[in-house]
Amino acid sequence: MHDVSSTAGSQGLVQVQRDARGVVTLTLDDPARLNALGSAMLAALQSAIDAVAADTSARVLVLAANGRAFCAGHDLHEMAARDDLASHQALFARCSRMMLSLQKLPVPVIAQVQGVATAAGCQLVAQCDLAVASSEAGFATSGIRYGLFCATPSVPLVRNLPIKKAMEMLLTGDFIDAATALEQGLVNRVAAPEALPEAVETLVQSILAKPRAAVAMGKALVYQQRELGIEAAYQLAGQTMAVNMQDADAREGVNAFAQKREPNWRAAA
Amino acid sequence: MHDVSSTAGSQGLVQVQRDARGVVTLTLDDPARLNALGSAMLAALQSAIDAVAADTSARVLVLAANGRAFCAGHDLHEMAARDDLASHQALFARCSRMMLSLQKLPVPVIAQVQGVATAAGCQLVAQCDLAVASSEAGFATSGIRYGLFCATPSVPLVRNLPIKKAMEMLLTGDFIDAATALEQGLVNRVAAPEALPEAVETLVQSILAKPRAAVAMGKALVYQQRELGIEAAYQLAGQTMAVNMQDADAREGVNAFAQKREPNWRAAA
Amino acid sequence: MHDVSSTAGSQGLVQVQRDARGVVTLTLDDPARLNALGSAMLAALQSAIDAVAADTSARVLVLAANGRAFCAGHDLHEMAARDDLASHQALFARCSRMMLSLQKLPVPVIAQVQGVATAAGCQLVAQCDLAVASSEAGFATSGIRYGLFCATPSVPLVRNLPIKKAMEMLLTGDFIDAATALEQGLVNRVAAPEALPEAVETLVQSILAKPRAAVAMGKALVYQQRELGIEAAYQLAGQTMAVNMQDADAREGVNAFAQKREPNWRAAA
Repeated sequence: MHDVSSTAGSQGLVQVQRDARGVVTLTLDDPARLNALGSAMLAALQSAIDAVAADTSARVLVLAANGRAFCAGHDLHEMAARDDLASHQALFARCSRMMLSLQKLPVPVIAQVQGVATAAGCQLVAQCDLAVASSEAGFATSGIRYGLFCATPSVPLVRNLPIKKAMEMLLTGDFIDAATALEQGLVNRVAAPEALPEAVETLVQSILAKPRAAVAMGKALVYQQRELGIEAAYQLAGQTMAVNMQDADAREGVNAFAQKREPNWRAAA
Repeated sequence: MHDVSSTAGSQGLVQVQRDARGVVTLTLDDPARLNALGSAMLAALQSAIDAVAADTSARVLVLAANGRAFCAGHDLHEMAARDDLASHQALFARCSRMMLSLQKLPVPVIAQVQGVATAAGCQLVAQCDLAVASSEAGFATSGIRYGLFCATPSVPLVRNLPIKKAMEMLLTGDFIDAATALEQGLVNRVAAPEALPEAVETLVQSILAKPRAAVAMGKALVYQQRELGIEAAYQLAGQTMAVNMQDADAREGVNAFAQKREPNWRAAA
Repeated sequence: MHDVSSTAGSQGLVQVQRDARGVVTLTLDDPARLNALGSAMLAALQSAIDAVAADTSARVLVLAANGRAFCAGHDLHEMAARDDLASHQALFARCSRMMLSLQKLPVPVIAQVQGVATAAGCQLVAQCDLAVASSEAGFATSGIRYGLFCATPSVPLVRNLPIKKAMEMLLTGDFIDAATALEQGLVNRVAAPEALPEAVETLVQSILAKPRAAVAMGKALVYQQRELGIEAAYQLAGQTMAVNMQDADAREGVNAFAQKREPNWRAAA
């Protein structure tokens, strides 16, 4: 069993589990508040993500949640209690920083979406590199129902879904179900609720079978190059591959292929 | 009935109807010419759109059409009668300005596509924020059949559809049906011909239930941020949400949520 | 029969066939090495593509392949035999140049994918303007299995597929089948293996029925404008259409439409 030697911790609202393989699972654990991204939850998440960034033997991050909601977005009670521009600016800046740190992590991030993901919760799914949803999950950018357009969620949303579908979600606040999320590109796979962890584990194992350095270089490259014109994108990508080829693991992989044997990766470092 | 107090006007080729809710319907009304975008039609549309932009209590714009075509694109008879570069430059500049003014409107624009939409008519659908099509509608960028590549239609087309599908439409001029348009992201919903107005009305009512200011701020943000790199996109989106929160309606919405009651929006202003 | 007068040549690894219509077919012909893009194959392809670029009466380029694979990507045996950064940089630069020259060709490029397309072979499909796949074809960006992230393939991949699907292919190296490639936007059409050439021929004939100059102007415009903000994109597209209208074929096409007759295109020049 891969989690026998796992270590678990808790940053209060976020459970942290790390197994011997380097798979870190962060579980949002505030079901009574539908795992809302209040200040305390944002701080706990940022701290846990920063720890993954610093953990050079971490290999994959799974973002999971307890309760019926994956994440209900910002904590509207907390927002209602503040009313100056400066605190709202600070709140959205902190939240955007957390979201971007998922993209900047050297390891792939997989959302394991067991329930509803709304507003910044839907954004969290869109911002992850990969996402697997329970067939009972639902997705909405519902802020507009409360007069607050989901502006920050729209950032990864329009980078995941066709524009008219994204605009429909943003203007109506209506839910899409898991099957629609799959069709539209918001998630990679849909599984029955009881098969959700297994579906995530399949992706995890596939990533673990690849060298860490190549995955890290590749993930960063994909997001960088897609913001460039195609000529610059090719230049950057070509340099990345040439550098990747200097890595011991890539040499071993290419040699193993040429010699028709399995590659023998060095220990992750 | 929501249109009892509606006012109707006509700019000749475009029927203008505005109901008491602030729903403006522009109906292309030149069925004999398949609602082609000749100079007169373009001027009538621009004038009607400018009036919506200036109408601070308008809430939604529906673009509809009479006859078997939604819009057949540019008026090729008129274009054939002119042959200097300067008039063609002026024509495409006027048409592009009209298309962009749909994106710049503070209210959402919904295309209600009852028939074929070809060339600049297909562009009109792609340029709207949302689109609902009759199951009998068809879509083509057919200019290339007459030796005139649909260059301006390609602008919103590649921002709506996957690139290979867009390129296929542009190079072949072939029609796609409504079901394919839905799959590919060109329209949001398909309805039976007799159910088309009702399907549009469902979206209209959803938008009317949201505060005007938040919708306007959000629509503008979505199109602005998607042209930016993701870091700049987040900065702009975060500022937009913080400013949105200073709005009375957003305060009311968030308070209503916190107090578990329905929000009571101020009158649109 | 359209190929009676065809001329055929061979650049060694690439068979070149050109018929009287101006349809050039390049067939990768190194089935023993799964048509891998080694230095010799890259040079042969570049030379054949450059010849098409210089052939002002070429009308369409079809990229086909012999054997069970369409193309297996880079030649890993050759890469394993070299180990300095400079040769890898040179290799990826040559490969990217070849890929970009497909986009820069004035004629449309259609991939005719009869078998598996992996790594730079999958990139080749993504980089073509159009693609038709056999129902038995398969697609993977498999470099990561050998420790070498498919960085350059990711460039056209993220410009063809939704980001999460592209990331899944890049991180797992797993195959998608032809039906999935169609759904996700990587190919335009899927045909039974025996019907593949016919399905490509249908697209070829559609393109041959359009004037060469308008197609060339349009293809270039599409790729240029999609890298621009929408206002600049419209400016460029409007100028392109106005210039296109000055072309004799466009005049003839528009006049023919106005006079309800078939256009009579001048001979391709």
